[in-house]
Amino acid sequence: MELFTRRHVLLGVSCALGALAGVRDVLAQAPPATAGPVDPKLIEDLVAANRILADQGVVDGYGHVSVRHEKSADRYLMSRSIAPELVTAADIMEYDLDSTAVDARGRTSYLERFIHGEIYRVRPDVRAIVHNHSPSVIPFGVTGVPLRPLYHMSAFLSAGVPVFDIRQASGGMTDMLVRTPALGQALARTLGTRPVALMRGHGAVVVGASLPLVVFRSVYTEVNARLQSQAMALGGQVTYLDPEEARLAEASVSGTVTRPWELWKKKALAR
Amino acid sequence: MELFTRRHVLLGVSCALGALAGVRDVLAQAPPATAGPVDPKLIEDLVAANRILADQGVVDGYGHVSVRHEKSADRYLMSRSIAPELVTAADIMEYDLDSTAVDARGRTSYLERFIHGEIYRVRPDVRAIVHNHSPSVIPFGVTGVPLRPLYHMSAFLSAGVPVFDIRQASGGMTDMLVRTPALGQALARTLGTRPVALMRGHGAVVVGASLPLVVFRSVYTEVNARLQSQAMALGGQVTYLDPEEARLAEASVSGTVTRPWELWKKKALAR
Amino acid sequence: MELFTRRHVLLGVSCALGALAGVRDVLAQAPPATAGPVDPKLIEDLVAANRILADQGVVDGYGHVSVRHEKSADRYLMSRSIAPELVTAADIMEYDLDSTAVDARGRTSYLERFIHGEIYRVRPDVRAIVHNHSPSVIPFGVTGVPLRPLYHMSAFLSAGVPVFDIRQASGGMTDMLVRTPALGQALARTLGTRPVALMRGHGAVVVGASLPLVVFRSVYTEVNARLQSQAMALGGQVTYLDPEEARLAEASVSGTVTRPWELWKKKALAR
Amino acid sequence: MELFTRRHVLLGVSCALGALAGVRDVLAQAPPATAGPVDPKLIEDLVAANRILADQGVVDGYGHVSVRHEKSADRYLMSRSIAPELVTAADIMEYDLDSTAVDARGRTSYLERFIHGEIYRVRPDVRAIVHNHSPSVIPFGVTGVPLRPLYHMSAFLSAGVPVFDIRQASGGMTDMLVRTPALGQALARTLGTRPVALMRGHGAVVVGASLPLVVFRSVYTEVNARLQSQAMALGGQVTYLDPEEARLAEASVSGTVTRPWELWKKKALAR
Repeated sequence: MELFTRRHVLLGVSCALGALAGVRDVLAQAPPATAGPVDPKLIEDLVAANRILADQGVVDGYGHVSVRHEKSADRYLMSRSIAPELVTAADIMEYDLDSTAVDARGRTSYLERFIHGEIYRVRPDVRAIVHNHSPSVIPFGVTGVPLRPLYHMSAFLSAGVPVFDIRQASGGMTDMLVRTPALGQALARTLGTRPVALMRGHGAVVVGASLPLVVFRSVYTEVNARLQSQAMALGGQVTYLDPEEARLAEASVSGTVTRPWELWKKKALAR
Repeated sequence: MELFTRRHVLLGVSCALGALAGVRDVLAQAPPATAGPVDPKLIEDLVAANRILADQGVVDGYGHVSVRHEKSADRYLMSRSIAPELVTAADIMEYDLDSTAVDARGRTSYLERFIHGEIYRVRPDVRAIVHNHSPSVIPFGVTGVPLRPLYHMSAFLSAGVPVFDIRQASGGMTDMLVRTPALGQALARTLGTRPVALMRGHGAVVVGASLPLVVFRSVYTEVNARLQSQAMALGGQVTYLDPEEARLAEASVSGTVTRPWELWKKKALAR
Repeated sequence: MELFTRRHVLLGVSCALGALAGVRDVLAQAPPATAGPVDPKLIEDLVAANRILADQGVVDGYGHVSVRHEKSADRYLMSRSIAPELVTAADIMEYDLDSTAVDARGRTSYLERFIHGEIYRVRPDVRAIVHNHSPSVIPFGVTGVPLRPLYHMSAFLSAGVPVFDIRQASGGMTDMLVRTPALGQALARTLGTRPVALMRGHGAVVVGASLPLVVFRSVYTEVNARLQSQAMALGGQVTYLDPEEARLAEASVSGTVTRPWELWKKKALAR
Repeated sequence: MELFTRRHVLLGVSCALGALAGVRDVLAQAPPATAGPVDPKLIEDLVAANRILADQGVVDGYGHVSVRHEKSADRYLMSRSIAPELVTAADIMEYDLDSTAVDARGRTSYLERFIHGEIYRVRPDVRAIVHNHSPSVIPFGVTGVPLRPLYHMSAFLSAGVPVFDIRQASGGMTDMLVRTPALGQALARTLGTRPVALMRGHGAVVVGASLPLVVFRSVYTEVNARLQSQAMALGGQVTYLDPEEARLAEASVSGTVTRPWELWKKKALAR
């Protein structure tokens, strides 16, 4: 189904007079309507989020970040398929929750955009999503070692960090990419109500109620992974945050995310 | 209990004439008097200390550094609540030892300013304090592994590095933040007469007789933690400084702190 | 033995008129003919590849990258012997597969250029080669620990990463450098049909069908080595990519290498 | 004896008419004669060496590098006591082998200059010396784990890397600093004919026949220490260079040190 592109659709329309079979499928591929323009400030923040994630080492040439459309819960905004560090406002595209571009104009989409659409579909609380190959996190996704919060900055990990294994989700061997709605839905199920899920042999997905929060969580998931590795290497018992400490700490710390956000934004946009 | 101290006594006198319900509370919130202007050089050094700590990787978007007022032992100076790397002279605020701002003018204070006020109160030898989430140090705060001086640059650690556990201090679960005078006092008690204390699941506090010294100690606490982790990973027995070696080395090295300070300051302020 | 190849045959014909003792040796040193000018875009990409490899930490002051001549399968292009980070278009030289410079003009060649010539000779699929001392990779070359793909980005490692031991290839002690055609041939045999081989006590060689691909593989070989070390240090069982997952992932990911290439190129050339 | 400064000497001279006792000691402190001006190119290289060592992470705010005077084997050149990264030509001072400054003009000398004078005295082959607190090297100095060459770039370590323990050299507790001729002589004895010695709880000393060579050795001692730690952490047996491989590799590689030197110099002086 996903094989039909906008060009198919146009061709389909010009054939429509004579052929009824398959019309429904073809029309289902017509580009969705836009939910309208968004505040330029939101676009600026989405561009900043891309640059910050690169600047903080959470993404390299790969990875993506999206934000839900402010006027419509069933639209989201994300860059065309380029390296996050190079994203500008002109690269931002609008998608519906099937992850079909509203107005592609020849721009290529990320193969794994279904991560975003399918999570937005089932998580009304989520307004921003990051997919990354955050380096210190990868080892936790391929070993049986659970990622756990070591300090207050990563208290949001306390709900548990599940690992999505695409081999189980697809029932066989894949190219490791979440390149279909079905795989996106499976990942969303693994994530459940949590803020972070790892992806075995691949990376992670991080969600939040805003761009500053999802960037904050992406950065401190990476930091916590690095610190947890170091703590485990010291030997001895590691004391993680108690669930109640984590609950209280997250409530307090989440109120301060604009502090690093302003710093990160200033630095990333200055480059 | 900790809310009514010296300041309260003074205010109490001025309250005595009127004594109406509610007046006491309002006046108790009256800002303390300023201890007067300070040498702009001290402000410049405090701004530099903020930038240096960020530049040297000891603080990220969080953490703070303060200096005792040069004219009054019961006042200290610290930035409003922003990322240390962004601090300028205009952000510096004056506090009394209850950690009440002299002239807030709408500026927000760090939630954990009580770390500073309560340590200044009981440590007359201390003229500068750093609170940070120094990355290599965190793992030592959550394992039973003591941080010990590996080389002469960190000889000041020889007195022992206690770990403050806020759960024990508060007798229950907290949000991990030293957000009350009582918690600040408990941390000060754990620190005792030493230059450094770790905070379980949180970070560290470092004190010294001057801004250059407290920055020096913050940097080399981080370096020592990293090197100690590496030495322990090599296997075999680690030889730490003998207490007498540490005492002699600290005396010598502390006389040289302006050397790195001048370098760090030049680099940090050039950015 | 390896010194007399196709070039020698051609020279042999031109030698036939004179046939004096010693003349053959002198003429054997005559430079091979050029295969003609190449697209300046290819030179620009070769210069960019040098800078990118330095920028990404895959080479330091040592290491080299070459590309096959676009008009002749038996010529390749590579910088004169300088640090990769300093390479400009004027430093690029043309070599035949004996690794003899077409037009040296006094410029010094890398001692280990035979790595390139001998691999191009037996690997028609290869159009670009990197030799490096990629730091995280070195430890895998001196221990019995096999380098294996941890995630989709390094799926190309799934064919296995052999280790070339120059001591066995030469039958005795050497200066560790692949400084003769015979050693280059031995290394090419160890590499076989694979994209990467390690060199014990030295570094690695990476090959690919284009400059962007060989740079991509060099970067992600380094990243995988670092992540694999970290995963192993966590303890527990490491799940590597299944060979079929790797085959599928490599096919998908190799179609995206221009994404990081454009980013890396922009950053490296901006310095 | 080292307590007598130039000012003492001047005072001593003005007292000389009336007092004979002690004259010999006082005159022994008269500043030594200069060996004359040196090629500005050598000063430029010494400045560059300071900056390179900082740029490459081998020194921080501490550490020093010296070069033997080109006209006199019993004089050497080194910066006054400032951070290496800040050194300019105006900071370079001339010393005799007692490490007495020829023309101090109020400039402060490094406390540990005796490392340099005493090694130059007994090692005629040495023309440049670095003292540093090279981070990856420190752990090897405080554990029983010998630093050994993992790859050809650090082949010069094959002669063995002794560890100087100042506690044994002095017969008791010290401030860890090589602050007397006697301690410098003891360190020189530990070094023997080798290129590198570690200093327990302190750092390392590296010597060579030229500034480019001693900088090269300092950088690759640091790199080797980091790689050896990583190789050991992988588990399994580490294969180090065979002594004959190391001898041959060092001979080859030492002929290429201008390659990284030119790169490092360009980068360090550009900052």
